[in-house]
Amino acid sequence: MSRDWLLEPCFAIDEESRERARDHQAQLTKPPGSLGTLETLAIRLAGLQHAVLPSMQQVWITVFAGDHGVAAEGVSAFPQVVTGEMVRNFASGGAAISVLARTLGAMLEVVNLGTVNDPGELPHVRRVIIAPQTHNFCEQPAMSDAQLERALLAGAESVATAQAAGARLFIGGEMGIANTTSAAALACALLDESPAMLAGAGTGLDAAGVQHKAAVIERALTRYPVDGDALAWLARVGGFEIAALCGAYISAAQHGLPVLVDGYITTVAALAAVRINPRCREWMFFAHRSRERGHARLLAALEADPLLDLGLRLGEASGAAAAVPLMRLACELHSRMATFAQAGVSGA
Amino acid sequence: MSRDWLLEPCFAIDEESRERARDHQAQLTKPPGSLGTLETLAIRLAGLQHAVLPSMQQVWITVFAGDHGVAAEGVSAFPQVVTGEMVRNFASGGAAISVLARTLGAMLEVVNLGTVNDPGELPHVRRVIIAPQTHNFCEQPAMSDAQLERALLAGAESVATAQAAGARLFIGGEMGIANTTSAAALACALLDESPAMLAGAGTGLDAAGVQHKAAVIERALTRYPVDGDALAWLARVGGFEIAALCGAYISAAQHGLPVLVDGYITTVAALAAVRINPRCREWMFFAHRSRERGHARLLAALEADPLLDLGLRLGEASGAAAAVPLMRLACELHSRMATFAQAGVSGA
Repeated sequence: MSRDWLLEPCFAIDEESRERARDHQAQLTKPPGSLGTLETLAIRLAGLQHAVLPSMQQVWITVFAGDHGVAAEGVSAFPQVVTGEMVRNFASGGAAISVLARTLGAMLEVVNLGTVNDPGELPHVRRVIIAPQTHNFCEQPAMSDAQLERALLAGAESVATAQAAGARLFIGGEMGIANTTSAAALACALLDESPAMLAGAGTGLDAAGVQHKAAVIERALTRYPVDGDALAWLARVGGFEIAALCGAYISAAQHGLPVLVDGYITTVAALAAVRINPRCREWMFFAHRSRERGHARLLAALEADPLLDLGLRLGEASGAAAAVPLMRLACELHSRMATFAQAGVSGA
Repeated sequence: MSRDWLLEPCFAIDEESRERARDHQAQLTKPPGSLGTLETLAIRLAGLQHAVLPSMQQVWITVFAGDHGVAAEGVSAFPQVVTGEMVRNFASGGAAISVLARTLGAMLEVVNLGTVNDPGELPHVRRVIIAPQTHNFCEQPAMSDAQLERALLAGAESVATAQAAGARLFIGGEMGIANTTSAAALACALLDESPAMLAGAGTGLDAAGVQHKAAVIERALTRYPVDGDALAWLARVGGFEIAALCGAYISAAQHGLPVLVDGYITTVAALAAVRINPRCREWMFFAHRSRERGHARLLAALEADPLLDLGLRLGEASGAAAAVPLMRLACELHSRMATFAQAGVSGA
């Protein structure tokens, strides 16, 4: 397998459609700029979708799941068996993202990249089993280069499926006990920040638990040379699902499919993607500022201004799903409001 | 007409349903608290709707429209004729709130309380014509006591219609050229703040325009004694649509119908309502922090933590409409997620 595809150029943005969308917004029956972010969303989407009137009806969600060897360090409030249990819950429709996808009429896929507690074949679950879990990155690199490449490709495969299904927006989510530890370690390496700044409570650690988690990350990071690019760090301390998200974000940008980034872990994957292929940043929307410590720092590093700030910290793409209606309403307003001329309304 | 009804007690909140909803949330397959505001929304709604599993399907929107004599002072970027033109645009489906209501499947009513440019009879427009406009409050009180009472009652009438139609949430919006001037004057009186703090750009004034607007308010406020309750100030510097919103918020609380407050002007109406009948505050949700100067100050006065912050400043209930999907998703998650026991997922 190769990683060369990661460096292929991103899809071109249609600046003419974007400018025509901007002109169109100025004609609608409202004070100019008064719909704030709902205006800029529609204008950006016009350039990305190569359409003056962009659409957000078909939304695709993939939740990537994988287990983490670092869970053995006692860094999560929940036992490792939960990753596999939640894959089953996604499939049977009881998880938060299941309910959200159903309510939104969004397509939901789950990709099982390897769980210690393997739920087996399930409807809407694609199996790309790389290993039951990553290695404990306190002891050795989380994954081999071949495993990394397989995970990155799994993300690209989901994007291809989404696009074939007519998706106009790709959302990636994640599930994996201990994956905030992996994400925080990766973020520390990429941003040269201390674990104390970027390690948070995850699913619900207390203060002592967070301190322990930061110490685990601190110890792991000292195992590796300080240099190393994003791919090297993904293999050292990443997770299968984090690598898959990274691959998905890059592939989506290469194929002209906008993405809506969810919370803490997905933002770390987005940061890695931007480090690998910087132009993919233009294809990213950011859904929300999560309650997880360090997320604001990550968003700042990406110059991202997320749509929501609701104290969410669940993952699973749940925060991104919650932001989908705003993107849809932005498109509807842009496409369906009357102009001043049509409505016979006087201007300023 | 009387105003005694304003002081009638608010509907009782069902604390048992609220506590059962809180317990139910703790059983759902997610780390406790990880859905943040989406959890607290559902729990609050359970208490207000007297149902462990609250519903947000039927949403009612009333846009109250009225003209303002103070427009003669040159305080708006748009001409006064626009109020009536926009009533016609609401009715014909081309305005932002028309598109939003249609997209959300919400019921939309427009109440014309008096516009200088009278659009006449229109579908979905209820006519409660009090006068073509309020008086210019720089010269005399904006309205008489009888006019105030009629406007307050118009709000209550909309609530009754909404409730008869099965609404589970009431949203009030407003349209009226120069009504940010009226709202800012009312807010200054109620909060004892200076116009420089609370007067903003409205539909798009430049810095000199905002300064002029603040000076107009300053001059008007000096006409009146510093004492005076919220009703007195509503008559002195309010608008027909602002009084109607105030009446609607109080009536909704009295009849057990939660309300979602929109932006700057509606928040001033909400503040007046809370001053008149303090318990109505418990029935209010706040949709967004608008870009209008002073809105954050108003929200703080009401201890309100709004759902969105998207730089909106349109009015018409548009920001409230944009927040409706979050309330709906909160209810869906609360009602449809599996419990740990149902899904066979291990706890922390």
